Amino acid sequence: MAEIATTAEQKCFGGVQGFYTHRSQACACDMSFAVYRPPQALDGTPCPVVTYLAGLTCTPETFTIKAGAQRVAAELGLILVMPDTSPRGAGLDGEDESYDFGTGAGFYLDATQEPWSRHYRMASYLTDELPQAIAANFPADMQRHGIFGHSMGGHGALTLHLKHPDTYRTVSAFAPVSAPMQVPWGEKAFGRYLGDDRDAWAAYDASALVQRQPSRATILIDQGDADQFLSEQLRPEIFRDACAAAGQSAELRMQPGYDHSYYFIQTFVEDHLRHHAAGLNRRGG
Amino acid sequence: MAEIATTAEQKCFGGVQGFYTHRSQACACDMSFAVYRPPQALDGTPCPVVTYLAGLTCTPETFTIKAGAQRVAAELGLILVMPDTSPRGAGLDGEDESYDFGTGAGFYLDATQEPWSRHYRMASYLTDELPQAIAANFPADMQRHGIFGHSMGGHGALTLHLKHPDTYRTVSAFAPVSAPMQVPWGEKAFGRYLGDDRDAWAAYDASALVQRQPSRATILIDQGDADQFLSEQLRPEIFRDACAAAGQSAELRMQPGYDHSYYFIQTFVEDHLRHHAAGLNRRGG
Repeated sequence: MAEIATTAEQKCFGGVQGFYTHRSQACACDMSFAVYRPPQALDGTPCPVVTYLAGLTCTPETFTIKAGAQRVAAELGLILVMPDTSPRGAGLDGEDESYDFGTGAGFYLDATQEPWSRHYRMASYLTDELPQAIAANFPADMQRHGIFGHSMGGHGALTLHLKHPDTYRTVSAFAPVSAPMQVPWGEKAFGRYLGDDRDAWAAYDASALVQRQPSRATILIDQGDADQFLSEQLRPEIFRDACAAAGQSAELRMQPGYDHSYYFIQTFVEDHLRHHAAGLNRRGG
Repeated sequence: MAEIATTAEQKCFGGVQGFYTHRSQACACDMSFAVYRPPQALDGTPCPVVTYLAGLTCTPETFTIKAGAQRVAAELGLILVMPDTSPRGAGLDGEDESYDFGTGAGFYLDATQEPWSRHYRMASYLTDELPQAIAANFPADMQRHGIFGHSMGGHGALTLHLKHPDTYRTVSAFAPVSAPMQVPWGEKAFGRYLGDDRDAWAAYDASALVQRQPSRATILIDQGDADQFLSEQLRPEIFRDACAAAGQSAELRMQPGYDHSYYFIQTFVEDHLRHHAAGLNRRGG
């Protein structure tokens, strides 16, 4: 299951930007992902890994093309892993009907409701299967593995870190969906993927999770105050308050004038990668 | 004629990434372009300008999204201007039939052949009309204006600089079409835009131009040696030899392992912007 096929590899900042596919048991379909190997990894030296989860409608190419992250990863010696945002081509009724559910909108959870539970199992994919494929095919030090993401992917990063702090040791987010049980994107997706039992939803809501099981990491969040989704869908203040109540170390930085786009992300991606490198090198060293 | 309409403006690295449209007399249609204003320009302080010409099939968004240039422009205080690669929607027979002619493939020249001569006048647009629009709408010091580009846009940058060294004072290129009269892309485009008279072609061939009128600038060129278009379409060695024969200062850097993509461009864009800033600040100071 750790076999991967190479779609393309291109040199970038002295390292290699690659695109790959593999068979996923968790999702019962082929999945694509991207990996950036920094120059430090090209001779096989194990490097720390940071996985980036993208937002609604995105693919493994989105962050790879738009974020300007390879420059920083090359300097810091970080392997970057960019998974897809959902299974694709599963052939389920309704999977392509809207931008915020189904294809491109897997919400990084394990669906329990038919027919979605047959394929939409991104949480299992990201905690077991993909890390195994990375470990088997790249010079990755999986003991030093962090996670970050944007919007829906920020939600994914926060929840996967809180649930699996030994797998994903460091965490940060750009404009995350911070309290999905309380916003339209989350209500729609959780209702269809997880059913009506809101207790089941809480396992995938960062603001609920952090109160049950805070981590020892410091969570870095950047949020533009001109983000068009800020007040209706993102609600970072709910997560900030939940962290404060739970004793979770977290820093929410409101960035004046920035919106929800990759122009915002590219502005702050260096800060995030330095946050991960510092945390991973401290723990790994 | 200097009136422009704003499509979008987004904060990026403390500056503003904007997308605009205006009516072009030269091209007899509406043209779109992008401008990045660095933080230094936001209070109206005049800043030097670097115009980037993109390659075949690209739009003003391509470099804006993929190059990671705003970070460097913000540091150096450079305004970036990203024009389109051709008129669009002119409604001419055949303009959308191929990727290397017509829409997205204006080749930065003034067509003389019907029907293309009605709209495809990118050379006039870029030497007169667009700079006037930039000067009228942005805090741009047009006495400090450089130009660079990629592939077809590298050809455009080299030729526009050599023909108008007082308009475009500094120049560089990524993987430029260096001798268009001698390669398939150039033969196809020049034949249809300019007709059969190859003397007319020479005015738009960098390797021919530099022998007639070298400039006092130093030309920086980066070229990946794994570029799939290197030997058939780009031919930088012809331009390098022409520069040597003409006494033109030029540096051709062959970059091992890099291809024709923006992963190559983003790797070296900082070097190029520093090349322009050094040249423009020397001349302007």
